[in-house]
Amino acid sequence: MNITSKVVALLIVLLCLPALADTPTSNPPKDKYTSSFTQILSESKGAEWRRPDPEDLLVMRLPSGRLVMELDPDYAPLHVANIKTLVREHYFDGLAIVRVQDDFVAQWDDPEADDGGDRSKIRSLGTAKATLPPEFTRSIVPSLPWVRLPDGDVYAPEVGFSDDFPAARDPAANETWLVHCYGTLAISRDNPPDSGNGSGLYAAIGQPPRRLDRNLTVVGRVIEGMDKLSALPRGHGPLGFYVHPSERTPILDVRVAADLPPAQRPNIEILRTTSSTFQRLLEASRTRHDAFYTTPPGKVDICAVPVPVRDLPEP
Amino acid sequence: MNITSKVVALLIVLLCLPALADTPTSNPPKDKYTSSFTQILSESKGAEWRRPDPEDLLVMRLPSGRLVMELDPDYAPLHVANIKTLVREHYFDGLAIVRVQDDFVAQWDDPEADDGGDRSKIRSLGTAKATLPPEFTRSIVPSLPWVRLPDGDVYAPEVGFSDDFPAARDPAANETWLVHCYGTLAISRDNPPDSGNGSGLYAAIGQPPRRLDRNLTVVGRVIEGMDKLSALPRGHGPLGFYVHPSERTPILDVRVAADLPPAQRPNIEILRTTSSTFQRLLEASRTRHDAFYTTPPGKVDICAVPVPVRDLPEP
Repeated sequence: MNITSKVVALLIVLLCLPALADTPTSNPPKDKYTSSFTQILSESKGAEWRRPDPEDLLVMRLPSGRLVMELDPDYAPLHVANIKTLVREHYFDGLAIVRVQDDFVAQWDDPEADDGGDRSKIRSLGTAKATLPPEFTRSIVPSLPWVRLPDGDVYAPEVGFSDDFPAARDPAANETWLVHCYGTLAISRDNPPDSGNGSGLYAAIGQPPRRLDRNLTVVGRVIEGMDKLSALPRGHGPLGFYVHPSERTPILDVRVAADLPPAQRPNIEILRTTSSTFQRLLEASRTRHDAFYTTPPGKVDICAVPVPVRDLPEP
Repeated sequence: MNITSKVVALLIVLLCLPALADTPTSNPPKDKYTSSFTQILSESKGAEWRRPDPEDLLVMRLPSGRLVMELDPDYAPLHVANIKTLVREHYFDGLAIVRVQDDFVAQWDDPEADDGGDRSKIRSLGTAKATLPPEFTRSIVPSLPWVRLPDGDVYAPEVGFSDDFPAARDPAANETWLVHCYGTLAISRDNPPDSGNGSGLYAAIGQPPRRLDRNLTVVGRVIEGMDKLSALPRGHGPLGFYVHPSERTPILDVRVAADLPPAQRPNIEILRTTSSTFQRLLEASRTRHDAFYTTPPGKVDICAVPVPVRDLPEP
């Protein structure tokens, strides 16, 4: 293993490995342990990973560091395009994280556009659209990738992965949608379904808020830096909005990765959910039995195995 | 609104659902909205709430404030008794939250007993036991309350509520257990299944870590102050342990509520899951359709509706 591989392996451990114990010793015989995520990922092949298109990556800088989000134009083309227009016109620079509701969402937008804001100071949307048709679901078409998860789901007839995002399908209704798991990125809105335009976004920071599925437009997920949202102080106003402006976390800026100098772009890869390595991870989750885990769960929930992301060493 | 009117209103909601589901982006007239949780809870009766036994309540003080935990001796009698022995001998006072792993758990224990600690400085367990038989599951007996949730589950043959905690059953194996949801309180351990004794505890702070079910001893849940754990800075050592001792959050003290002066005891009530109000909350979750929600989720996950807790006014 060379230095680069070691760095990658270490980052994979930090990003992907949940466990309560770290030094397997006995029970059952060690040669019959389920492979660990670290082991499985270390055996992956380069072609099983993809570099996300920098046109689909957003980089948001907070005082605490960087968040990276991957957008999915297959599921929300209108909203993704509008967000990119807003980003490219620097709409978000200087705005703030305005709401952190425990076990639910962190949300950022123009505080003046929220309840209690000064409507005369609302930031212009520039050339972006103010209303868009909702993209809560889309039709199932053959060109959409689909890796079905056979384990079942409480909420949807079928679940699986599409474009490497957790997703669901209702074949009878010919509908598919991206589902809300930890880290899911979606568009906040007011009551009218067409009132979301991408100027307000939220990420899920707690249990999967699946009741939001098909009621909000999901545009992607946070693939790096989730803890910079999930560990923020909770707001104590209604719905977790901060009561005092000073509690908000300022957004330094948001950029489309393609617009950054190459050296500043996120140098990351995402494991393809079509890969045999991803299937091995799912199976290891179902059957996990090692020095620590004595009773395998047998199944895996659609949100239980976040699609792995790895940082590559600087070139 | 009298009882008859309430029944009629509920029936209207139920009867309207199929029609509403056929037109997912249209909103019903306001008088046909699903009742909000706030509304439903405001209509609850006093007898639907219970005051937890102060012998089963732990109060943990952190610099940021108070956490309250309810223990369930029905499911983990040996561990609950051992924890209370430790608490009553002030074992936890001055220890620390040593680990916060994003989207997983916050854990507290004696840092000297963890990897990298100074074994010569490990705090004595006093009269508490060092090892206990695991209480990962228990037998199903008629005396255990059971409010079945009919919505299904990915992991367990049956889910429901027992002693007002989220739980699961496998009737074929005659086993039942408390499940891991956000806020679930359980015993950390090393590899041997009997190595947990209650001197280390964790609470789930992210997505339900259901893979831990039947592998760890669940003793209850945090019923107040979860955000004092979930918003803590994440640890950046292996498994989310803090790298530097200065990053840890000190525990001021932990007490059994029964040992506190009455004025300092938590003055709270928990909604009985056997109550019709709790069933109304579940049904409102399934059928939610109002000015904002256009597509009801149809189902509710075992972790999706945390059992309500309310603060009573000071006497």
